[in-house]
Amino acid sequence: MGSKNLIVGQSGGPTAVINCSLYGVVSEAFRHGDKIDHVYGMVNGIEGFLAGTVLDFAEALPGESLKGLTTTPGAYLGSCRYKLPESLEDPVYPELFKKFEEMNIGYVFYIGGNDSMDTVSKLSRYAAQIGSDIRVMGEPKTVDNDLVMTDHTPGFGSAAKYVASTVREIVIDANVYEKKSVTIVEIMGRHAGWLTAASVLARKFVGDNPLLIYLPEVAFDVDKFLAKVEECLEKNPNVIVCVSEGINDGKGTFICELDNNVGVDSFGHKMLAGCGKYLENLVKNKLGVKARSVELNVCQRCSSSMMSGTDQKEAIGAGEFGVRAALKGETGKMISYVRKSDLPYAIAYGLEDVNQICNEEKTVPLSWITDDGSNVSEEFIRYALPLVQGSVEVPVGTDGLPAFVSRK
Amino acid sequence: MGSKNLIVGQSGGPTAVINCSLYGVVSEAFRHGDKIDHVYGMVNGIEGFLAGTVLDFAEALPGESLKGLTTTPGAYLGSCRYKLPESLEDPVYPELFKKFEEMNIGYVFYIGGNDSMDTVSKLSRYAAQIGSDIRVMGEPKTVDNDLVMTDHTPGFGSAAKYVASTVREIVIDANVYEKKSVTIVEIMGRHAGWLTAASVLARKFVGDNPLLIYLPEVAFDVDKFLAKVEECLEKNPNVIVCVSEGINDGKGTFICELDNNVGVDSFGHKMLAGCGKYLENLVKNKLGVKARSVELNVCQRCSSSMMSGTDQKEAIGAGEFGVRAALKGETGKMISYVRKSDLPYAIAYGLEDVNQICNEEKTVPLSWITDDGSNVSEEFIRYALPLVQGSVEVPVGTDGLPAFVSRK
Repeated sequence: MGSKNLIVGQSGGPTAVINCSLYGVVSEAFRHGDKIDHVYGMVNGIEGFLAGTVLDFAEALPGESLKGLTTTPGAYLGSCRYKLPESLEDPVYPELFKKFEEMNIGYVFYIGGNDSMDTVSKLSRYAAQIGSDIRVMGEPKTVDNDLVMTDHTPGFGSAAKYVASTVREIVIDANVYEKKSVTIVEIMGRHAGWLTAASVLARKFVGDNPLLIYLPEVAFDVDKFLAKVEECLEKNPNVIVCVSEGINDGKGTFICELDNNVGVDSFGHKMLAGCGKYLENLVKNKLGVKARSVELNVCQRCSSSMMSGTDQKEAIGAGEFGVRAALKGETGKMISYVRKSDLPYAIAYGLEDVNQICNEEKTVPLSWITDDGSNVSEEFIRYALPLVQGSVEVPVGTDGLPAFVSRK
Repeated sequence: MGSKNLIVGQSGGPTAVINCSLYGVVSEAFRHGDKIDHVYGMVNGIEGFLAGTVLDFAEALPGESLKGLTTTPGAYLGSCRYKLPESLEDPVYPELFKKFEEMNIGYVFYIGGNDSMDTVSKLSRYAAQIGSDIRVMGEPKTVDNDLVMTDHTPGFGSAAKYVASTVREIVIDANVYEKKSVTIVEIMGRHAGWLTAASVLARKFVGDNPLLIYLPEVAFDVDKFLAKVEECLEKNPNVIVCVSEGINDGKGTFICELDNNVGVDSFGHKMLAGCGKYLENLVKNKLGVKARSVELNVCQRCSSSMMSGTDQKEAIGAGEFGVRAALKGETGKMISYVRKSDLPYAIAYGLEDVNQICNEEKTVPLSWITDDGSNVSEEFIRYALPLVQGSVEVPVGTDGLPAFVSRK
């Protein structure tokens, strides 16, 4: 392959480190100027690319300014939730590859979760079908940590750190009063409870809050939940309960649906809201106890102040590793994290067949959840603790607030 | 006055720096060992004191551990929402002063907001009435910034910094998609919009989000609001709107009451929830636009990661100043911040008659709100910006997460 250009896009919801993956890809590509001429970005993913919105990183973030990506949450390039057609006979594929050829693209990088790996799968299969030598690579990203064939995903460590530290602060906030109270903290996670499980890291001693942790992997029983809360209130004036947004009755009904209207997003996912509010009202009405609910909203995935140094470093590394792999001829692969050991914590980067990843979901092992479904095990803590280590200094602007890079 | 003991309590909701005020009082008291023997803390405020729960700081936080208070959010001593009876003839007053005499208390410090200053007022008036030489001093505290006779209050700067940086991150989160969307951010503030106004600091250029900011000081008109949102959507795909929880129709009805049940707390305050959710549904239904709401919940008042260095320094200073003033004979006073200049920012500490402060509320000047009530002025920015300056390094524990001090 002669000298070619590289294009990279971001897709799906933002995380604290999706721009670190982007930095890894772009900075490594710049280091291979003999093989890669231009480094382009798709603005708003594959959908924006089809509409012709592309930027050149050498112009958009020249010199040292590129580094700003490593401390900027969100998706610098913008995102999309566009699903490529299932049939490779669809005319969008030749349209895309015509555009790639026109721009002399040799390498396509796509950073995202399950749905984005679906895009990587389709593009790489289409390339194989037409005999194109364009290499298509997936960089993982999701706060949900639900991608298969990788120890964890970039974005999870920072989100887990946000959850752990915020739940700790909510515990501190609740502890100021002696009157009995229950706080329900609702945490992101439709089908996988990884992020909710991370709330266990807020616990400082045996018997400390959060006393109860409920994940969507185990059927949620409203009566057993109320009995557990009552039991906890006997010994503790303030009870903090962490629940995944996706807790359900095990038969297909989300707890939030018991009381709420839900919509459906463009991928057919149910839009959830409010199991925290539902449980708050339940505790108030059934137990007659003061209750409140806190929904850890979008800040879980876009907080820079709780970025994990480990997460940042690994995301950059995965971006760099992906470019080197593509240059060696790899395509249709997602970069994975392979854990070598817990103590000391060490990972290696790996390459996985993207077709085995897209549209699969990795949930928390049932053996890491206690028998009554109200807590997580030491194994989870051993798994998650290394991922939240290390803090990141975010540059401060002239206004004294965190300074982020953004597109013009 | 011979050698006496000092007792300090915390009351009302927590803030990021209420423990800095506590540190200021306790550390300064230790510096005057010739006049102050023991430094006691009321556990859970005046209510806990009546129940006999008191700690001795020399035992509870010996040596360097005391310093941990300066980076611990929440209320180390615990809090209460106990209102002393209006009539100074009530038997609780002799009961309290008997306990003070038994403990050889010469100085009573109470850290809190309006309701706590009411406690300081009653205790100091009762002391005067019975000819007691016990000196009673108030240390201000409130994220709401609504205490009169002070430029601002300890706790506001950190909460404002949390609001500004979090709204900035919500803007970044919203900007990843190109599809039209409206995000409603609901911010603390029943009657005073100071904290919501601080969201303006998230704006990085003219025409940047948050595009609309609504405070409770100005009557909220639902139709005008919808027209404004539509106008903004013409030029911007993503519109971020910041609203105080207490926005109202100007005739006594909170916007959240249009759709929600509300309760009343023990001080007779209405318990609010959900004007963000209400406006989210309104935008969806009336404008047919994708909408979401984010309630900045308790993290506004208990986040250590966005503690303002200025706020921290001033809270400690106010605590120290108060002890020196009490030693000089002052009583019935609240420590105030007197702004000397904006550029360079400088304040002095002052002493104000607590009777003129309690049960009053300082709202945002109408001249700092734009005529149509949907924005705040440059004057507010000039006022608020110095208060969010400086970051604080929070110590990290062996688990890699922020390490806080707590009572055993």
